[in-house]
Amino acid sequence: MRGGTLRWTHIHALALTALALGEPAVAADAPPVIPPEMRRTAEALVDKAFVGTRASEWVRGLVDTAGSRLSGSPGDKLAIEWGVATLKRLGFANVRAEKLMAPHWVRGVETGEVVAPYPHKLFLTALGGSVPTPESGLDAEILEVANLEELDAKKPEDVRGKIVFINKRMQRTLDGTGYGKAADVRHRGASRAAKQGAIGVIIRSIGTDSNRTPHTGGMRYLDGIPKIPAAAVSNPDADLLERLGKEGKPVRVRFTLGCRDKGEAETANVIGEVPGRGSPKEIIVLGCHRDAWELGTGAEDDAAGCGIVIEAARLIAGLGSRPRRTIRVVLYANEENGLAGGRKYAADHAAELPLHAAALEADLGSGRPIGFSWNAGPSSIPLMKEISSLLEPLGASALTPDGLGGADISPLVLSGVPLFSVRQEASRYFDLHHTPNDTFDKIDIPSLDKMTAAVAAFAYVAASMKEPFEKIPAEKRKLPEF
Amino acid sequence: MRGGTLRWTHIHALALTALALGEPAVAADAPPVIPPEMRRTAEALVDKAFVGTRASEWVRGLVDTAGSRLSGSPGDKLAIEWGVATLKRLGFANVRAEKLMAPHWVRGVETGEVVAPYPHKLFLTALGGSVPTPESGLDAEILEVANLEELDAKKPEDVRGKIVFINKRMQRTLDGTGYGKAADVRHRGASRAAKQGAIGVIIRSIGTDSNRTPHTGGMRYLDGIPKIPAAAVSNPDADLLERLGKEGKPVRVRFTLGCRDKGEAETANVIGEVPGRGSPKEIIVLGCHRDAWELGTGAEDDAAGCGIVIEAARLIAGLGSRPRRTIRVVLYANEENGLAGGRKYAADHAAELPLHAAALEADLGSGRPIGFSWNAGPSSIPLMKEISSLLEPLGASALTPDGLGGADISPLVLSGVPLFSVRQEASRYFDLHHTPNDTFDKIDIPSLDKMTAAVAAFAYVAASMKEPFEKIPAEKRKLPEF
Repeated sequence: MRGGTLRWTHIHALALTALALGEPAVAADAPPVIPPEMRRTAEALVDKAFVGTRASEWVRGLVDTAGSRLSGSPGDKLAIEWGVATLKRLGFANVRAEKLMAPHWVRGVETGEVVAPYPHKLFLTALGGSVPTPESGLDAEILEVANLEELDAKKPEDVRGKIVFINKRMQRTLDGTGYGKAADVRHRGASRAAKQGAIGVIIRSIGTDSNRTPHTGGMRYLDGIPKIPAAAVSNPDADLLERLGKEGKPVRVRFTLGCRDKGEAETANVIGEVPGRGSPKEIIVLGCHRDAWELGTGAEDDAAGCGIVIEAARLIAGLGSRPRRTIRVVLYANEENGLAGGRKYAADHAAELPLHAAALEADLGSGRPIGFSWNAGPSSIPLMKEISSLLEPLGASALTPDGLGGADISPLVLSGVPLFSVRQEASRYFDLHHTPNDTFDKIDIPSLDKMTAAVAAFAYVAASMKEPFEKIPAEKRKLPEF
Repeated sequence: MRGGTLRWTHIHALALTALALGEPAVAADAPPVIPPEMRRTAEALVDKAFVGTRASEWVRGLVDTAGSRLSGSPGDKLAIEWGVATLKRLGFANVRAEKLMAPHWVRGVETGEVVAPYPHKLFLTALGGSVPTPESGLDAEILEVANLEELDAKKPEDVRGKIVFINKRMQRTLDGTGYGKAADVRHRGASRAAKQGAIGVIIRSIGTDSNRTPHTGGMRYLDGIPKIPAAAVSNPDADLLERLGKEGKPVRVRFTLGCRDKGEAETANVIGEVPGRGSPKEIIVLGCHRDAWELGTGAEDDAAGCGIVIEAARLIAGLGSRPRRTIRVVLYANEENGLAGGRKYAADHAAELPLHAAALEADLGSGRPIGFSWNAGPSSIPLMKEISSLLEPLGASALTPDGLGGADISPLVLSGVPLFSVRQEASRYFDLHHTPNDTFDKIDIPSLDKMTAAVAAFAYVAASMKEPFEKIPAEKRKLPEF
């Protein structure tokens, strides 16, 4: 799925349709699954949330050193260097960059304006993977639709030659689930509009803010349908188009995108390990993604996740007694526009995937933890209840036993590797997601510390329990479809 | 003061150092100043706040029709046309555009980047009135200072050849008074840095947000000092420069400004009147400014003020019995970069200024009213206490008897015209002030209605009372200095 759009936050939305398990608690009449000493150590890790952790240092290191870092960019290379140097400096074992090829798309000139009925500048940005406009731009009347279904129902003669404006508004929710409900427009809008004869598509940004900073993000073209330029306008600009449209006069728009598909470029997953003591070949993957859309500096998306998993592993490495299994931190490449990092990891490590005891990914910013979602065999439930009870001091004990883990680790589902995610508050995350505003000042450090503690406690227990989690049952070993 | 920076919000900050008068109330033993029937009519105007007004329609009309409208721009002309057409359509009398010449400055290409120690894009924008950089840009190490005082204390050899970065942070306050305390950096930073040998100046945006949308605004050069390019970086970019500076390595920045001083251009104050019944030659001016910095569409600054004063006058025109004096709505030109509109009004109307009974300006967005500040003779106090008691239902009865009215009406001070302002909540106003984010969606319509009602009640009473306000005493007839 080159140039595809497998976004974890989208997957996440699906997961939350699952039933919660109610109050997590250890049944009074069952013996505890986690031995007392292991529990005490895990509790000490949870307490790190209140002492403070160094997670924000690693976030800041990645953000300030590498900045803008889409696959193939100079920042991408700096981020690989930073990742290798940082993991080595922190004492991780087997630190390496596992090379791979990933899509290389670059943004170019971007201009937008309302030509009629009144002149206005439009703040817009190319969706990731879009083809460019002609150099002179596109200039046409817009046809406003509320969503893809309304677009599909239009007569081709009403769409032909127009720029389709898809005006679907993302809703703000506690956990960011509004994103999954709106993002279809970004993923599929261009081909759906082109199928009806449109010459370009403009979408309302998939975001909850009211800034003139449009939200980019991956899109893809369907085979056999003309590829038309696709851009997002900021929410205030979408409001303007909506108001002008209500006046009843034709609204004409002109825009230019100079983006380019440059084929593929070399990049790398950056990996470091905390070797296990008893069963070092058994692996707990803690993942995040090292790349970021290049408009901002990807502090929340996903330097935050990298800070969380690096620090969680570092805290475990510093314990008096190391856990049984190896904790493997993977800073994935190319989550945003291709998922080449996640796929390559699954392919290169196919032989050892049967020994992957669990994989968890952090990719929803620095918001506080809410609880777990996961995909594993049903016998995982009692242990997950106990782990979640550990997180009660963090207010993060909700359980959603039907998650998908995360975009980069999602290919592991085919091998049955148990997949985990710590759900997070994300009510402000989509104000800045995929915009220039995703910068270090947005990191909520106390919440980041809570997330770090939650991931550390989970990883420590998962790496220490004698019996690993039950693998994903065969019927649940399905790649998410988009 | 061509290209000067007489900003009302700055003046306002000074006003608030004045003592408040405590609880506004009519002294129990004094007869009421406002006759009962007049008071009932004023109360009915206050009630419009809760019924709803049409102020937001006029805001939207100006913003959507004229959009970006700095003096001399195409939008400026559209705004004049809109103003004349709208005032005529609403039935105002003597509607006209009083032409004048104003500074014509245009923004050009703007680029910014951190070159060392790590590559980063910088989001910056020219301060209004800045000279351009050479076409190849400026490229130099930055010297960070906290404020003008620290800059002045530097040795010239430490400043020479550098780009000075003034990192003064504006504080968020209820009524926006943090602005006046930070804006000196924007007004005076360039000449103060140039005096020490700097080749350019970059300031932290004067704004309370954390968006990558830098705040522009007027600046001026002192005579006899080289004019150096002046830009504002967004707050997150200033944070980045600050963090990089703390690493101890030299921070090198490159930036390009393509702005141009194009001399002067024709513009106009747009005026319409509600003629008085008994003393139509006596004038109550209700002012706002029609121009706006061109990055956004000036919805809060100052289409909001125009909506307020137009609607307040329209509500008064619709009363069963019209007040004694004429209400004159003035949509001033060129408040942002020259104040040519305010000066020209004072000059052209010099002969009738003795008959100007009061002037009020609305120029702080759509925030709710808090109370009054004003400058008039001391006998104004009992009447102002009664007017403020009318506004108790709006929560707007605080009195600050030492205001300056507003930038556009400030030249009237020399003639002793009593000057008034309704103070407003402005805690969010400086998130978007002078940025692209100043768009119609930011208008707080219920608060705008409250402001409209407050202005209408004041103007009605000021226009109806038999005795006009006492003129400003001679010792207080001073133009604010900057």
